Amino acid sequence: MDRQKVLKRTSWVDVPDKSDFPLINIPFGIFSTGSEPARAGTRIGDFVVDLNKLAEMNGFNGIDIPSGTFNHPVLNQFISLGRPVWRSVRNRIMDLFAEENRSDAEKLSTILVPASEVTMHLPVHVGDYTDFYSSIEHATNVGIMFRDPANALLPNWKHLPVGYHGRSSSIVVSGTDIHRPKGQTKADSDENPAFGPTKQLDFELEMAFITGKKTELGTSVTTEDAEEHIFGLVLFNDLSARDIQKWEYVPLGPFLAKNFGSVVSPWIVTLDALEPFRVAGPVQEPMVLPYLQFTGDRNFDIRLEVSIKPEGSNEMTVCRSNFKYMYWNMAQQLAHQTVNGCNINVGDMYGSGTISGPDPGSYGSMLEIAWKGTKPVRMPDGSERMFIHDHDTVIMRGYCEKDEIRLGFGEVSTKILPAVK
Amino acid sequence: MDRQKVLKRTSWVDVPDKSDFPLINIPFGIFSTGSEPARAGTRIGDFVVDLNKLAEMNGFNGIDIPSGTFNHPVLNQFISLGRPVWRSVRNRIMDLFAEENRSDAEKLSTILVPASEVTMHLPVHVGDYTDFYSSIEHATNVGIMFRDPANALLPNWKHLPVGYHGRSSSIVVSGTDIHRPKGQTKADSDENPAFGPTKQLDFELEMAFITGKKTELGTSVTTEDAEEHIFGLVLFNDLSARDIQKWEYVPLGPFLAKNFGSVVSPWIVTLDALEPFRVAGPVQEPMVLPYLQFTGDRNFDIRLEVSIKPEGSNEMTVCRSNFKYMYWNMAQQLAHQTVNGCNINVGDMYGSGTISGPDPGSYGSMLEIAWKGTKPVRMPDGSERMFIHDHDTVIMRGYCEKDEIRLGFGEVSTKILPAVK
Repeated sequence: MDRQKVLKRTSWVDVPDKSDFPLINIPFGIFSTGSEPARAGTRIGDFVVDLNKLAEMNGFNGIDIPSGTFNHPVLNQFISLGRPVWRSVRNRIMDLFAEENRSDAEKLSTILVPASEVTMHLPVHVGDYTDFYSSIEHATNVGIMFRDPANALLPNWKHLPVGYHGRSSSIVVSGTDIHRPKGQTKADSDENPAFGPTKQLDFELEMAFITGKKTELGTSVTTEDAEEHIFGLVLFNDLSARDIQKWEYVPLGPFLAKNFGSVVSPWIVTLDALEPFRVAGPVQEPMVLPYLQFTGDRNFDIRLEVSIKPEGSNEMTVCRSNFKYMYWNMAQQLAHQTVNGCNINVGDMYGSGTISGPDPGSYGSMLEIAWKGTKPVRMPDGSERMFIHDHDTVIMRGYCEKDEIRLGFGEVSTKILPAVK
Repeated sequence: MDRQKVLKRTSWVDVPDKSDFPLINIPFGIFSTGSEPARAGTRIGDFVVDLNKLAEMNGFNGIDIPSGTFNHPVLNQFISLGRPVWRSVRNRIMDLFAEENRSDAEKLSTILVPASEVTMHLPVHVGDYTDFYSSIEHATNVGIMFRDPANALLPNWKHLPVGYHGRSSSIVVSGTDIHRPKGQTKADSDENPAFGPTKQLDFELEMAFITGKKTELGTSVTTEDAEEHIFGLVLFNDLSARDIQKWEYVPLGPFLAKNFGSVVSPWIVTLDALEPFRVAGPVQEPMVLPYLQFTGDRNFDIRLEVSIKPEGSNEMTVCRSNFKYMYWNMAQQLAHQTVNGCNINVGDMYGSGTISGPDPGSYGSMLEIAWKGTKPVRMPDGSERMFIHDHDTVIMRGYCEKDEIRLGFGEVSTKILPAVK
């Protein structure tokens, strides 16, 4: 089947207009229902497909998958089978649920669960988590606000994808409520720090990729090979406490300002699904060192939105950005991560850093949107936001759209609860 | 039995003079032999005790341990059983191998393996790894060298135990050779960075504690409860590439300079074993915030040494320090780590940061020992060291000694191989 035909394939499962989950998506996630434990699934329209049951029905005959692979509470075992298997599984699911296979609809309907009836779980056990800082617009905005507008980018920024290690344990799935964190902060005018709930709780609009292939310590991944190591992407809300960060981060970087909860969308969208949305990234000038050079289009046109929903009120979109703005692409990030011999594992997560675009409507954090508190945002209920309030829900969405084809990530949603007493 | 009598207990297993592993130590580790897979053991003198076989012989009768607990390639399952179980197991082993139980020697000798015949493995699966920066002497030395001698400590340093997240995947066990990492560096006089093997490969003398009790996201551990969450300690060589670090670390902290290999000693010594060596730490002035205040002695008198062994030459001790110098203790570190609600897991690792003492002979890194390259160290073979050379082996040792009782950690040893071509 030629590529355009594949992209136009539809399913015998009803897929609503503008759904993020048409037949050509086939993301992977972990779900549970009241009666049965967490296991692997995919999603078509408003239904979750139980992949464990599909395997038990011999739906994956001819693909080399050990028994029980989909009957785990994380996807790591499946992912570790490698890209040829992920690809075969995705293709098989597309075939089985395609319009032309409507004759099997009755049989296969038994393994569909309405999405409204499932609980989604963190899709992978995250071994290590790195957060990059790869949006030039975000890094520039931060530099203007906190350092020198004339020299907003630090000297290393255009030479390497700046990144740091984050905390894996506090990565949670969409729908997990997070308490406002407490910590030390110090006002410039005070001599000593104070302790209490953060007054500057922020979101960071990010995407994260998940690695699907292990490497050994002492080896490196090239930009050419990097995508073979990437299973797929999720939306990522890197919650941040700006006032805690300001006091703690010199000289060793962000710590408690970032590790109280980072929230991911539940469905991992594969690179195969995203292939039609590949685009060129920004021109990199000065030229990067050879290990960071790459060929081909390595950015992806993924439209991103952030909304804030005050309790009892409507949500309001505060940011419209795009993953294509990234200055450093995923292949470069992974090549950099491993150039010193650092090893990677299946299920590691790599955040992009805040994805800001060129204009204020595309800034990916409240810090930038309200410009350090100088431009508060007025909400539909009349209240103002410089940062996130207690009981606000932050919702991020992402989707790709081109030539009448569309697929997406669903959403990552988090409600902020008051600080623990 | 009273405490002094317990500490004087000896074993029917022959324990050489000055051994790190007398009957009163009973550390935990993972070992394998040629014929059998990795499993849990302890060590007495020059012998490893096979704990899986001891369990199969019903040696732990009356202690609530699921079958097969010691038959895993990591200790996490055992550790997750909780402190009362660790304590009962250690006490039981001490009873079985005590001099007064010599009647069982013949039977129990069958589960002893000469230490020279085993391969030791990383003792735990490390979920998350944090590295602190808790030696005031080290932080001061770094501040003098790189910032302002008059204001060597940064403003936050005495208010909170500065720390950052490290990479778990590259934590390896003693005996693992590490290739010199490659990366970007930039000389002050150059306009652009260059790429190549680090020219400033360093060790950092650290200890690390391993957590033994899980917490939930949103909860905190107090300084009073912290030690209940700590299973034990290991020696920790936090290998560092100073030139890579200098170029990459602003503003988000160390990254590739630290994640190419961090090496731990194989035997985890429990807090119970270390109890006799508790001492008071340095006075903390200014007074810390309430959540960091603590009662009792929370430091431990552990003597530490670092040697460098050039290939084909004798080793030379380049540092003699002590864990008791730590300004911030483990209870404070864990209280700080969790004060914002960050959750911890069984098997997480928490490095102390470089442990330097007050005089130059006690500095815990080559950066400080050779004072930024201005005071090279002359080795027995006539060569000089400002940093670590290819084929050098770095060996760290640690032990406690008091009132004729002694126990120790063994060693953590790493050979540096040339950069991968």
